Formats: sequence, C-alpha cells, structure tokens
Amino acid sequence: MGQTLTEKILDDHLVEGELVPGEEIGIEIDQVLTQDTTGTMVWLQFEALELDEVQTELAAQYCDHQTYQFDFKNTDDHRFLRSAAGTYGAHFSRPGNGICHNVHKENFAAPGKTLLGSDSHTPTPGGLGQLAIGAGGLDISVAMGGGAYYVEMPEVVNIRLEGELPEWATAKDVILEMLRRLSVKGGVGKVFEYTGPGAETLTVPERTTITNMGTELGATSSIFGTDEKTRDYLARQGREDEYVELAPDEDAEYADEITIDLSDLEPLIAKPSMPDNVVPVREVAGESVEQVIVGSCTNGGYEDILPAAKMVKGREINKKTEMIVAPGSKQASEILARQGWTAEMMAAGVNFSEATCGACIGIGHVPASDSVSLRTFNRNFEGRSGIEDDNVYLCSPEVAAAAAIKGEIIDPRDLADELGDLEAPGIELPDAYDGSKADLITPEEAVDDELVKGPNIGNAPIGEPLGADIAGEVLLKMEDNITTDHIIPATSDILKYRSNIEKLSEFTLSRVDETFAQRAMDSGTGVLVAGENYGQGSSREHAAMCPQYLGIEAVLAQSFARIHKANLFNFGILPLAIDEETYAKFEQGDDVEVVTDVAEAVEAGETEFTVRVNDDWEATATLDASERERRILKAGGKLRLTKEQYEQEGGSGATPADD
Amino acid sequence: MGQTLTEKILDDHLVEGELVPGEEIGIEIDQVLTQDTTGTMVWLQFEALELDEVQTELAAQYCDHQTYQFDFKNTDDHRFLRSAAGTYGAHFSRPGNGICHNVHKENFAAPGKTLLGSDSHTPTPGGLGQLAIGAGGLDISVAMGGGAYYVEMPEVVNIRLEGELPEWATAKDVILEMLRRLSVKGGVGKVFEYTGPGAETLTVPERTTITNMGTELGATSSIFGTDEKTRDYLARQGREDEYVELAPDEDAEYADEITIDLSDLEPLIAKPSMPDNVVPVREVAGESVEQVIVGSCTNGGYEDILPAAKMVKGREINKKTEMIVAPGSKQASEILARQGWTAEMMAAGVNFSEATCGACIGIGHVPASDSVSLRTFNRNFEGRSGIEDDNVYLCSPEVAAAAAIKGEIIDPRDLADELGDLEAPGIELPDAYDGSKADLITPEEAVDDELVKGPNIGNAPIGEPLGADIAGEVLLKMEDNITTDHIIPATSDILKYRSNIEKLSEFTLSRVDETFAQRAMDSGTGVLVAGENYGQGSSREHAAMCPQYLGIEAVLAQSFARIHKANLFNFGILPLAIDEETYAKFEQGDDVEVVTDVAEAVEAGETEFTVRVNDDWEATATLDASERERRILKAGGKLRLTKEQYEQEGGSGATPADD
Repeated sequence: MGQTLTEKILDDHLVEGELVPGEEIGIEIDQVLTQDTTGTMVWLQFEALELDEVQTELAAQYCDHQTYQFDFKNTDDHRFLRSAAGTYGAHFSRPGNGICHNVHKENFAAPGKTLLGSDSHTPTPGGLGQLAIGAGGLDISVAMGGGAYYVEMPEVVNIRLEGELPEWATAKDVILEMLRRLSVKGGVGKVFEYTGPGAETLTVPERTTITNMGTELGATSSIFGTDEKTRDYLARQGREDEYVELAPDEDAEYADEITIDLSDLEPLIAKPSMPDNVVPVREVAGESVEQVIVGSCTNGGYEDILPAAKMVKGREINKKTEMIVAPGSKQASEILARQGWTAEMMAAGVNFSEATCGACIGIGHVPASDSVSLRTFNRNFEGRSGIEDDNVYLCSPEVAAAAAIKGEIIDPRDLADELGDLEAPGIELPDAYDGSKADLITPEEAVDDELVKGPNIGNAPIGEPLGADIAGEVLLKMEDNITTDHIIPATSDILKYRSNIEKLSEFTLSRVDETFAQRAMDSGTGVLVAGENYGQGSSREHAAMCPQYLGIEAVLAQSFARIHKANLFNFGILPLAIDEETYAKFEQGDDVEVVTDVAEAVEAGETEFTVRVNDDWEATATLDASERERRILKAGGKLRLTKEQYEQEGGSGATPADD
Repeated sequence: MGQTLTEKILDDHLVEGELVPGEEIGIEIDQVLTQDTTGTMVWLQFEALELDEVQTELAAQYCDHQTYQFDFKNTDDHRFLRSAAGTYGAHFSRPGNGICHNVHKENFAAPGKTLLGSDSHTPTPGGLGQLAIGAGGLDISVAMGGGAYYVEMPEVVNIRLEGELPEWATAKDVILEMLRRLSVKGGVGKVFEYTGPGAETLTVPERTTITNMGTELGATSSIFGTDEKTRDYLARQGREDEYVELAPDEDAEYADEITIDLSDLEPLIAKPSMPDNVVPVREVAGESVEQVIVGSCTNGGYEDILPAAKMVKGREINKKTEMIVAPGSKQASEILARQGWTAEMMAAGVNFSEATCGACIGIGHVPASDSVSLRTFNRNFEGRSGIEDDNVYLCSPEVAAAAAIKGEIIDPRDLADELGDLEAPGIELPDAYDGSKADLITPEEAVDDELVKGPNIGNAPIGEPLGADIAGEVLLKMEDNITTDHIIPATSDILKYRSNIEKLSEFTLSRVDETFAQRAMDSGTGVLVAGENYGQGSSREHAAMCPQYLGIEAVLAQSFARIHKANLFNFGILPLAIDEETYAKFEQGDDVEVVTDVAEAVEAGETEFTVRVNDDWEATATLDASERERRILKAGGKLRLTKEQYEQEGGSGATPADD
C-alpha cells in the first residue's frame, strides 16, 4: 500500500509508535520555532531543565507579537529572548523583522523536514512540503533538548484541488471555502494534504495562505507536495539547494477525500465572529466599513500586499475608512519599498505599519466601538480585536482593498464594474526575494552568552505530583468553542505578563467571567466544565499553566482542541471527556468529586472515571490518554517528569528520551 | 523706536492691551491646531459653548499621539475628532498622516499669521515666521469661536546667530546649546527671536527644529524672520504665494541679546533626565545603547531622517541595538519611500514605524529596564518614555545613527574616523515636497455632519463659582520642575481616558504619589504645594481639569510654567506664588486656610493673600492675575464664564468677546 506524503515524512522521523490513526507516535524534530509571547516560557523551561544547547538542526526565536513594545516588560522579553537565543544556540529575529511564520518560510522552511513551533499557525510552511506542527511551549523546550515530539497519529485527508482560480478569487477563498464546508472543528485529528491539478496552479505563497489557515479547521497540519513551483520559490529565496521532490504515492490511501474545483470559487468572507461563518462577499455587500487591515501571517506577504497596492495605486482610501498595512515580514516591506509600492500605498492614504502580528491579536488598531473592521487575518473570535462585541470580517487582500476604496463591503468584481479601470491584480512573485538579513542574528553572530532577565521575568512553575483525590467546585461552566483567547487573552495589557505566571494568572478566563481568577484563588482548588472544542485557537500553554497555577485539577469538556489537550497534560490537569447529557446537567457551583483514587487510576490506564456531583448524581468521564501522557499527569506535568528523567539519567543528555 | 518681529506680528493682531512686557494682551488668532489627546476636550468644550462653526481662518485637527490605537477608546477618539472637524469646519488629518507640528508646517504654516495650538510644541512654525503659541484646549475652543487669546506680553530676546555649522553639528545642537546655557526655565515669559548671519545659513527645517524645542526653554514662542530660504521652502511645498517678507526693524530694541557662534558648536547630547542636562557627546561616549529612535516633531522630518538614512545605508545596525525610525509625517515617509531610503534603512535593520508621536510620549517602544535609549526627541523627563528610572538621552539624528551603528554613544566625528568611509550627511531638502494629501480631509470633503461619540467620550466638566473660603489639607508637597507628565501621565494606559475626566482623574499625580487621587477624593477639597516651574512641559489642560475635578482649589508654588498657569485659571484653581522660605516650611498634611474672603479678594484685585497654616503660622501668597483672569477664577473657570457671556449676548455670536 502506498503512503501519503504525511506518512512518508512521519516515517522518516518516527522514533516511537506506528502510523495508525489515533495511536500516539513519537517523532524526531528537525526545526523548532518560537515567538515572543510563548518563547519566554519556552526558554525558562529550557533553563529549568538545565539544558546547555539546542539539539535540533535549527531553532529560531522570533519577536513578532508585541513589537510595538507598549511596556518595558515587552522590551525586556525581547532582550531576554535575544539572550536566550544567543546563550543556547538559536537564531534570533529582531522585533520588526516580521512574523515568525513568514520569516521562517522565507529563511528556513525546508521540504521533508519536521518543524515544531509554539504557535498555532506553525503549519504555514506545509505550503512548501514541510511537515509543521504547532505545540505548547514545553513541547518545544523538550524537542530543543533533543526529545521526541509525541502526537496522536492523525488521519490524512486528501483535498483534491481541480481547475484554476478565476479572476478575483484567491487562495484565501480556498481556505474560507474549506472552513465553510468543514467548520472550525472539521480538521480535528487530521492532516489535510492538498493534491491534484489545481494545487499545481498555486504558487508557494498561495499554498502557505491555505496551510496557515488550516489551523482554523482544527487540523494538526496541512501540507502540499513539492514541484517546480516549490523549487522556483526556493530559488528566488536563494535556497534552491534545499529543494526536495515530495509527493504522495499514487496508490496512497487517504482517510477521506474532498474535492474543490477552484474555478467555482468566488470572493468569500467570514462574518463575525468565527472563521467558519463564511458567505460570498456579495451577501454582505453594502455594510459600511471603518477599518481595513491587510497583513498577518495568513496574508501579509509581498504577494498578498502587492495586489492591494496595485488596487489602491492612484486612488484614495475612502475618507471614512482607515486602511492599515502591516507586512508579515521586513523582507516583504523592504521589497515593496524598493519597488515603490510603499510610496504608492502611502499616497493613497494607507497607514503603513511595522511588520508585526499586532492587530491580529488585539495589539494596536483596535476597531472603534460599534464599527466594522475587514481584515485579511485568520481569526475573528469575538473580542480578539481588543474590543468586546467587535464586528471583524476575514477576507482576501483584494476584498479588503475593495472595501477600503468603496468605504463599504463590496465584491471586487462589482467594484471593477463600477470603476471601469480596476484590473484583477492576480498573483506575482518578485524576481528575487533580495531583502536584507540584517535582522536575523545567527547563533554565530550572537551578542549574548548569558540570560538577561528584567524584573518581570519569573520562573517556569513546576507542578506537584498527582494525588489520590480530585474534588472541588465547578468554578466555571462554559459553552462550546471556548478559545485560548478566552482562557488567557492576548491583548497588550495582559500579554506583557506572559513571562510572569503569578501575575498572568489573575487574568485567567476573565473574558468569560471577571470573578473567576479571584474565586479560584480563594477556593484553592476546583474544576472547569465546558462544551465542545475546548481550548481551540492559539497554542499558548499559558492557557493550561495559569489554571494549574490557580489550582484547577481537571477540565470536564465534551471535547478538546488538540494542542490545548496536550498542554493540559503537560501541566498536570486532567482533560476528562463528558457526554452532552452530562454537560447539560452540570451547573456552576456544583461540588464535584472523582470517586476513584485518581493517581492510581491514571497510572493503571483506567479510561473511565466516576464523577460524583453534589453527593446527588453520578456520571462517567473519560480519560483518553497514552501511557506517556499518563506518566506526565502522574508526575504533575511534563516539566517535572522530564527533569526527573534527566536526573535519573545523570544530567541533561544530548538526546534524552522524552519518556 | 523700531519693532521686533514679534512686536510687529502682535501689533497686527492686537485687540486689547499694550505691547508692554508683563502686561496682558489680547490677540486675534488666525489659525488653530489641536491633536488627539487634547482635541477631544477642545471639541467637547466647543460643543458645551453651543458654538456652530469654526471662526478662525483655519482650524486643523490632527491625530498623532495615539495612532497605534491600543484601545477602542483611542479609535473612538479619532472617529469623534473626524466627526467634530466635519461638523464644525476644521481640516482633519487622519491617524498615520503625521504629527500635528510637522503636518501643519508642511500644509498650513504661514509667515506673519498667528497660530494657537493645544500642544506645547505649537511654536514649531516660528521657523518660517509664524507667531505660534501653545495653549490649553479651552483657549483653543474659545479662539475657534472667534474670541481673542490672552497672554502676558513676553519679553523679546534676540538670539544672534553667527558663523556656520561645522560638519556633524546640527540645528539640534543649536537648541541643545541654548538649553545648556539657559536651562529649562530660561525662556519663561520670553519670545526668542533668532537673527543674524548664522540664521540665514539655516534651512526652514533646521529653523523649525530650533523653534520647536524652544518649548523646552519654557519660552512663550520662538521665531525666525523670513528670507529666500523661507520662500524656497514654501515653493517646494507648493505654497510660494504664502510667502511674506518679515524682519525686525534694524533699530528694534530687545530685552536681551545672546550670541551663539554656530561654528563653535559640536555634537551635543542631553543626558537623563532633563533637556537642559547638556554635554558634548564625547563626554558620555562609550555608554552602551540598546535603543535608538529617530523621529518626533523635533527631528522627524524628511530632512532629519535622511542624514540617518545616509549614514546607515549599506551598513548594519549593531546587533545589540534596536533602531526605530518614526517619521514626523506621511509626507516625509512617502518621499523617503519614493526615493528608496526606506528600503535602505530597512535593509540596515531599521524598524520603520508609522508616523506618530508614539514613543516620545511613552506610547510604544518603551525602553528595556536598566537600559540606555538615544532619541532625537525634545523631552527626556524621567518616566516619560513609559518606564520609571529610564535613561533617555536627546540628540541629533546624526548622533543617534552613529550610536545605532556602534552600539554605544559615540561622537559621529569619531565614528567617521573609525570607519573611514562615513561622510557627514549635511542637510538636504527634496526638490519638491510632493507627498499626497489623501490623509488630509478638508472641511469641504468632510464625511460627518454630526458628532459621533463612543461610550468613553464624556462631557466637558463645568466648574462651580469661586466661594469665600479656601481651606484644606496640603494633599501633596512636590519638588521643583513638576511636569504635566507628572500631573497627568501620557502613557497609553492613561491616555485613553483623555475624553473621560471622571476616569482620568483617578490617575492625577500618580507618578508622584499613587495614593494622591484617592486621598483627594476622600478629602473632597485641598491644596497642592510645589517648588519652582510647576506645570512645565506639555500643554495638556487635563493637568488642571483633573485636579479641579478632585476638588483642588489652589496650588501654592514658587513659580508656574506659563501654559499651565493659564490652565489653572481656566479651570478655576488659584495659582498662588510663595517664596522659598514658605515653601520650605510647608509639610504634606498641613492644614491650610486662606484667611480673607477669597471671592471678594479675587474680584477686588488683591494680590496678597494671607495663608494660615495649622493655626500656627502665617505666610503671604501672591496672586499674579489680570482682571480677565480674576473674572475667570471668580466664575469657576473659563468655560462657565464664556458660556455665561454668550448667554448674556443672546447666543454664541460669531465673534464673542472673550471677556
């Protein structure tokens, strides 16, 4: 039986387990990446593990989320990260050099390699045949220490693309169409492998828009094979020698196959406030727009900004609309500036920003109250923009630019009809991606050889071993699709405490219930109850670390998002699955007791845990955990377990086994 | 007797009083400007006065301070300002279009005209012969309503410039030399008139660097005559028809004369944390630098950034240093981008920002803890950068760029020696300032005809008439040189409440004493005691408005900064001068009682007020106030007084008398 492309790469990197969907496998990691909001904890954990040097082929530390440096704590974080990269042997990308996914794609992403990143959009380089997976920071620390990464073997689904994109339809519309069809839960436990003649028509930057936003489907990763387009992209980046031909076997067996005919696509838009709330742009045309932002890791490349630049050149942004362009990387900024596009955009009234994640995580350019913002980003979760009750739409740069010109949502095809002289910009790559590398400091160029910690930089908390009893109050009952943005918001007033768990914990779940953190602290222990897809969104491990710090011992949810579930294990919190009926019966304030000896049951491999509620009724909760995950839980989290293992092995070996 | 240039312009605009130094005069205002942190209150007061339309020749509303829009309150403010400009007939400059002083200079500043602005650096266009004065927001509202502006007739001092700047010395070094000689109090009650052969050698952008930072001397304004350089600048801006020849009479009599030989100047730097803490750069050479910022209204023009761009072109910013360029205007950004300089700076490792005041007021790019930041700004008051105990140095773009290359403070002459191929960039104007005007919305192009208020936008508070008694506790005793940054900090967490006095008041004087606001609220009344030069710095009227809101009835200080003193009057707070001995005797917590009937004494023109302290000792405090100011105090502030006057006159006339 032939292999899928995913299976081939996994096979090449397999150190434990079998490639059977649902089974846990351990794989070797070639490259890791981390950024400024998850990276400080990655390195503090690396330090806590008493490791000396990065063991992966390549590690890269980016500064992209809080590059505006609103607070000295942000600037201190960046300095700490520079010092950690220098001390331990990682590349360091300075604030302003761009978003991790974009800069990694440009400089390091390599077909056939594995990449683990502490950011949920890590799968971006899947567009050039790299198998890239997002994970919690601690998994990154361990992988950098030479440990394997463990993940449930996903189902591999074939997304067969046919036809060719018509004018004004874009790669963004491909992934919006996927979201429309499959929903934000549609990719859970899956890798989407894009194949077929339609895939061959797409350039690498288009492919990476799709693989990037595969995260919004809940997918473990998304990937394209490689071909002449891949070689050509690498060549323009000056890295043709890294090209490897990769394709699934002709007789590869997929768990499922979905066909999208690109020629059927039209401009689509995700309405507030979920990325899968997708409709044709024409369905919401006429909605007045106060803000348009082109940028982010999804659509912040040169190839994404250029179409918007071509559209606004010689025109003016509507007087009631603000248009901001936040490039995904300085490579993009520099080439756009060199070619004169930056001046043209400025002339049209665009506010040209530094290269940053920024507004995508509610940092800067927060929309006005009761206003519509169109963004080329990947997420529009309610409140993520920095204001509650926001109205954020997600779309392609073309649709965004059209709205900026018109001052309202309009299908660019209709705007072209109206204006008469507006041509579909299409996709265009520069002859050479000849941006400077001045902001990318190699390990050899490092300026630090020890950690520099500002006063806000704390330590990595180490959990306590699991005890026999879990008993406490249901401190919060939540709905479906609670995101990690709900659990630990990413807005700037909170983000600055990412290196300081004690302080950060005060904001836990504040977006759901402002009294939660205080109640949890007062109570000292407790459990959470949630509906489906708990913990979707960003990879931030703080969403498990802070509940752990507040004494949360278990989350009872109908289902869990992949990365967050791994983070719950990593921080010693039991992720217990409950059915819909049980979920419905729970009320906030209920007293919950796990009847069995928890430590014993976890160790013994029990999957069913009887939960007694208010001494009144009982339900069964299920623990779906591998042996490795059970050992982590029992130890009180992965950091403590790994430390203990290193100690038993007599020091932090170059290639410590992860379990 | 001949007239100074200042006297000539004042004479042309005089509506009340005589041009006798120290006497109050009323002048007609031709142009006003306001920005986003003071502007919301300007328009709320304009609204409270029930005025219909701007009466000055020109009014311009800029959005420059909080263009990063960290909070929806900022974005709401910008929307409100756009709506106010549209409703009442002002030009509106969109966020991202640049700093008020730069954009005003480029588009509107006109020789011989008067300009009143609610920003302390309003004197900037003095560099092209405009008499420009900073004032509190309420003065702007009244001037926009057609009322005169009242100010104490300043002494006019002749700053005679001789010689020519040597290589590597710049206009910034001229004003730093002024500060070194005269201190931050050296300009109080004065207008500095720059004359002599040295003045003729300076271009308009160099002159405006000097007039801009005259504010740091405490000067009422600074001004140059006009000449071929002025005509040339206006021509390059496409406004040659606005040129007027202006010069002091040959026999003009000045209150004082200071001579600076430009050829004696060398690169200077203001050390932390006062702009007058000036030494030669060589004296602090070798200090390690983590951050360099080129920008601000002082040195953020095309002509300021270009030298830095020339210096870093083809080189790399030191790996341990971050260099940020924040252009003063989009005109500058656009021309730099069009000429390729933006790409060159990015290639060197510069993080190129949107055009904003930003870091200059602690908004973004806050320095790391315990680190040195070199900035081309005008102020380095402690904590203004957004972190307490900061180490901010002020210097020219050339000195800043040298430090960015070297990673430490270095005289650029020494760097040139070291590098061998570094040439002094000198000053260069573009052939034409041909940036787009897309972001400047004229009254005719306005998109709003009514005010749009978000939920954070409150009302202008109207004070209560002065009573007979002032008695209360000394709630705070402060040192010399307390700035308006101390009184109402401008950092982003606080700035967002500028339209919401109730909330903003909670932060009053928090930088001096965190408990102050609560103590004042608990007390309900009280007085402040301070040393010399109380209220220096920014023009923000919130520094009087919030104390008024908290119940402060008098400030007893050794001396007051000009704009702040006017703001105290405007908000009904008695500015009482005390001598050094009395100051020394005061202790925080003292019980203070003004012995006489205050309302009566203010009305009767009394200048000496007996203050009884702790029923134990007495002192004399002096009220230096014009009749007009006394009427304002008595009414409980200028807003109430003006409203009452309008009502008596039967509506808000087109040209209401101010008193």
